[in-house]
Amino acid sequence: MSVLVVGSVALDTVQTPSGRREEVLGGSAAYFSVACSYFAPVRLVGVVGEDYPVSAIEIFQARKVDLEGLETRPGKTFRWGGSYENDLNQATTEFTALNVFEDFRPRIPPSHRDSEFVFLANIDPELQLNVLDQVRGPKLVAGDTMNLWIDLKRDRLLEVVKRLGLLLINDGEARQLSGRKGLPAAARVLLDAGPPRVLIKKGEHGAILYAADDIFALPALPIEEVVDPTGAGDAFAGGFIGFLARQGELSAENFRRAVVYGSVMASFAVSDFSLNRLTGLSEDDIETRFSEFQKLTAF
Amino acid sequence: MSVLVVGSVALDTVQTPSGRREEVLGGSAAYFSVACSYFAPVRLVGVVGEDYPVSAIEIFQARKVDLEGLETRPGKTFRWGGSYENDLNQATTEFTALNVFEDFRPRIPPSHRDSEFVFLANIDPELQLNVLDQVRGPKLVAGDTMNLWIDLKRDRLLEVVKRLGLLLINDGEARQLSGRKGLPAAARVLLDAGPPRVLIKKGEHGAILYAADDIFALPALPIEEVVDPTGAGDAFAGGFIGFLARQGELSAENFRRAVVYGSVMASFAVSDFSLNRLTGLSEDDIETRFSEFQKLTAF
Repeated sequence: MSVLVVGSVALDTVQTPSGRREEVLGGSAAYFSVACSYFAPVRLVGVVGEDYPVSAIEIFQARKVDLEGLETRPGKTFRWGGSYENDLNQATTEFTALNVFEDFRPRIPPSHRDSEFVFLANIDPELQLNVLDQVRGPKLVAGDTMNLWIDLKRDRLLEVVKRLGLLLINDGEARQLSGRKGLPAAARVLLDAGPPRVLIKKGEHGAILYAADDIFALPALPIEEVVDPTGAGDAFAGGFIGFLARQGELSAENFRRAVVYGSVMASFAVSDFSLNRLTGLSEDDIETRFSEFQKLTAF
Repeated sequence: MSVLVVGSVALDTVQTPSGRREEVLGGSAAYFSVACSYFAPVRLVGVVGEDYPVSAIEIFQARKVDLEGLETRPGKTFRWGGSYENDLNQATTEFTALNVFEDFRPRIPPSHRDSEFVFLANIDPELQLNVLDQVRGPKLVAGDTMNLWIDLKRDRLLEVVKRLGLLLINDGEARQLSGRKGLPAAARVLLDAGPPRVLIKKGEHGAILYAADDIFALPALPIEEVVDPTGAGDAFAGGFIGFLARQGELSAENFRRAVVYGSVMASFAVSDFSLNRLTGLSEDDIETRFSEFQKLTAF
């Protein structure tokens, strides 16, 4: 089944304890698309400027990502600069140049409106609501957000959350949005806000999937050197939604295994800068990493 | 097989978001003994003052804890006062009155020196070394410590660590003792210091068992109300060592399941003040909670 993703496509300048990279491929929809492409056909809706490198387009094409919904507009591509110091879970934004992304109004191509799976990456909740109005009865809509929107557009964000089948959110954002310090209490508040499932990403501490009557917790793979945490959450979402789209059936068991495949793709994403590791995977790499999670957690 | 524990027996005054309790039963050896007693015979070596309540002695007796090594000395029992505010993983010490514990010199009764399993709870590394010189060829020695000893007696502590079969330590202490920020790197440094296995306790984020060629990670059970975190680490150790002592064989599989039983006992410990929940368990309570961990983590 097909997956539609709406989000940012960017050029990132990133500084981590492992080094610095300038103007490398980034953006939530880019990370998501590449990770998801190993599992299911992906349709990317986003915007880039005229300066977006053709080599990047070729990367998406090599992964068979459908770019019909990727607009090219006059001007420059969205730039983001960030650094990570002691806490690899927390980026410090050095600069943001929205450029063509400032006026982004997602238009879902008619041929994409029946996508069975929809991922609303971290963008303005107004735009997320707009996308929800354009799609036709998807099987699952999942959404992400960030502290900025919780601060600035809380009410609109809660309207989005209400319409999601799955909220993907990190631990800090879950606390901020719910107003609860403890994650189990935060998850309950978020479930009460609408979505039948809430996935809380905890970085090096793994992930927990909450449903009204089921909880699944998965530790992260211990990684000695996290090279670049950028995009880990979006790669997670890509593996997660991609696996569900490949399976088709939204069973509790598939949701659990989706958490594992999400963690698999996140573990690849952080092991190199930008999309470097994510673009060169084989099916065997992915299944081997899945087995490592089984070995890590079996008792 | 028998388990010997050497550690503190105390009266605690504790303030948590759930309330306050004064002069309740506490101490590392007390929590350990009660938790361990559900799995294997326990021998407690420690010291109390003349004011130690007979009702506490009866609790140990009801759990068939061997008290031959529990000295009663003239003076008052060790008192500790602590509070937990926002971060339930971190106690703030309000007061410490060592009393009879100040001159504690563990004497292992001759009949206890052949204990197959030994747990060196968090006490002065000098005393831990002294205990190691008194026991005869145990099958497994496990040890705990705290930030105080890492600060004050680092070299002596490293001598202890070198002689352990298993180091049990929390995440903050693992970082402090190893000088490494990342837990996988910290664990490697600690393994290099001697013990073939290092168990890092991460509170609400679970626990990870590191060996040279094996890693096992277990999430914590999501608990909405942690009533009192005091003694969780010792209850963990009690379930962990107790299970191994019951099984006898130190296989990789048993070590993994020991992490689960440790987590089971810790989850009971934190759900009420003092030893309240730990003392009234049935075998069925424990196996039911074990199944909850299976359900939480299966995929």
